[in-house]
Amino acid sequence: MDVLTVTLNPALDRELIVENLEVDKLHRVKNPKYSVMQPGGKGVNVSIILSGLKIPSLAIGFLGGFIGTVVEERLREVSPLISTSFVHVEEETRENITIVDPVNDTMTEINSVGPSITDEDMEMLMRRFRIGLRRSKIVVISGSAPPGVPDDFYASLSEEAHAEGKEVIVEAVGPLFEKAVESGTVTVAKPDLRGAQKLFGQELVELDDYQSAAEDMISRGSVMAIVSYHIEGDVIATSEGTWLLSTKEHVERSHLLGTGDSLVAGAVQHLTTSPGDYFGAAKRAMAAAIAESAYVEKKIISDEDVARSEDFFVVRKLR
Amino acid sequence: MDVLTVTLNPALDRELIVENLEVDKLHRVKNPKYSVMQPGGKGVNVSIILSGLKIPSLAIGFLGGFIGTVVEERLREVSPLISTSFVHVEEETRENITIVDPVNDTMTEINSVGPSITDEDMEMLMRRFRIGLRRSKIVVISGSAPPGVPDDFYASLSEEAHAEGKEVIVEAVGPLFEKAVESGTVTVAKPDLRGAQKLFGQELVELDDYQSAAEDMISRGSVMAIVSYHIEGDVIATSEGTWLLSTKEHVERSHLLGTGDSLVAGAVQHLTTSPGDYFGAAKRAMAAAIAESAYVEKKIISDEDVARSEDFFVVRKLR
Repeated sequence: MDVLTVTLNPALDRELIVENLEVDKLHRVKNPKYSVMQPGGKGVNVSIILSGLKIPSLAIGFLGGFIGTVVEERLREVSPLISTSFVHVEEETRENITIVDPVNDTMTEINSVGPSITDEDMEMLMRRFRIGLRRSKIVVISGSAPPGVPDDFYASLSEEAHAEGKEVIVEAVGPLFEKAVESGTVTVAKPDLRGAQKLFGQELVELDDYQSAAEDMISRGSVMAIVSYHIEGDVIATSEGTWLLSTKEHVERSHLLGTGDSLVAGAVQHLTTSPGDYFGAAKRAMAAAIAESAYVEKKIISDEDVARSEDFFVVRKLR
Repeated sequence: MDVLTVTLNPALDRELIVENLEVDKLHRVKNPKYSVMQPGGKGVNVSIILSGLKIPSLAIGFLGGFIGTVVEERLREVSPLISTSFVHVEEETRENITIVDPVNDTMTEINSVGPSITDEDMEMLMRRFRIGLRRSKIVVISGSAPPGVPDDFYASLSEEAHAEGKEVIVEAVGPLFEKAVESGTVTVAKPDLRGAQKLFGQELVELDDYQSAAEDMISRGSVMAIVSYHIEGDVIATSEGTWLLSTKEHVERSHLLGTGDSLVAGAVQHLTTSPGDYFGAAKRAMAAAIAESAYVEKKIISDEDVARSEDFFVVRKLR
């Protein structure tokens, strides 16, 4: 096992296609194909994309109730390269329901909160994390946390992994992410800026701000920082320099689904075969994200997809 | 085992409470308690209500996919008095999603179709039906059928049960129901008129129409017919006469959920203890429906609930 992915708050992603959706009306989904469900949550998505790139991974985190069972069964069906060892909790795993109306071109979303996590659940997770660590070289900690998880939990996981000599990739937002970076034990730090363009209290507006944010994370002990710059770029910082990687072609906003997770999976894939080559990992990550952006839906990209995208971006040294 | 319930198209009934639901917006279900799921489908509901009245039943029909598994597991959790022997099909069991907005007092419903049923699935069901028949005195066939089920399927089930000397209660609508009644093998016939007030091609408007419809079913071979007359009444016909049972108090339309299934369960309960007393069964049925109407939600009523409601209606002889 090469990679351990941690998803504290997985989801069942559901898409219902309903024509002419109206509040206070009865609708029928006419075709069973218009109701799709698939496992979601950022770490889970990374495991799925890794499986398409032929990298085995162990997915851990919390799953609860019937929805949790569906997520786990569906995840196992994706690929034999994905193993799971989730802690089962009582309350239901969250569902993200998206009602797509192709007639009026609307997207109505109903997301539920995750199950409450107790101290015992967290201890159970730590135990599985330690077992998973022994079998892994790289740990991916990605996404938000359900209610009950303290802000320093990602920092604790990162510290343990670092102490065991593992590489740690964290993609998250807010105090969970910032405390992990502040621990100085994160190898690759990638803030999830989809909600707000803000990091360590700083608003990110100009390219300079993104560059400073990336370099700031290096000064806090990360080996590489990846900061998305608008839709078409990524600022990459290491101790050796800072670069802007930009796509050569325009990327549609509607094609962004899954690109962040593909980016992380691309970096992980490169680091499993070329340990220590962080800049190479950043380029592979960019190619993977561009490969994913060719698809509207969440797509399991292949090595061929990634290889085809390797020339689709330019690298500019910022420092 | 006393009762066999047949539900060809069970459902997972889901209720999501979402404040200020708006099309094309993102919403969050704040509290896990605001997302409820329970097994549904008319025959399944009868099994659930029977369990509250301490009558064991075997529930059969078709269940498919992950949603089918959830329905079966939840159903088994309701009570040890419910046994299940569903035929598992590949496509997903339908879901009835109701999004309740308590702020704007709206109810937005999204119902999916059931799984497609093949000839092999139907043969499998017939086999389980025959096995279930041996252990049962009363058969309840209730609700709609999924795609692929021929219009004469309820008639076939009813004929087999009748040939084995069992009592058959059918609640349904359209050709499925009418062909069963025309077979002359249905003991208690109850059209499900929630969609359209129409039976054997006749519009039902005046009380006379309902009375004729009930008496027509007796002339076609049913022992008792129960026809809901508006919200607060039921027309009951047997070979001995026709009666109107009316509630003494006003019933809110919003409290009707589950009353039809409680009515059937009440009749079944009486017939298990007092075989042949059809008019007694009709009165017990009415009391059970009134007991259910005290609750907004689908509620598992108790014998005490039913007993309390026995004086809450008046009986008027029509013929």
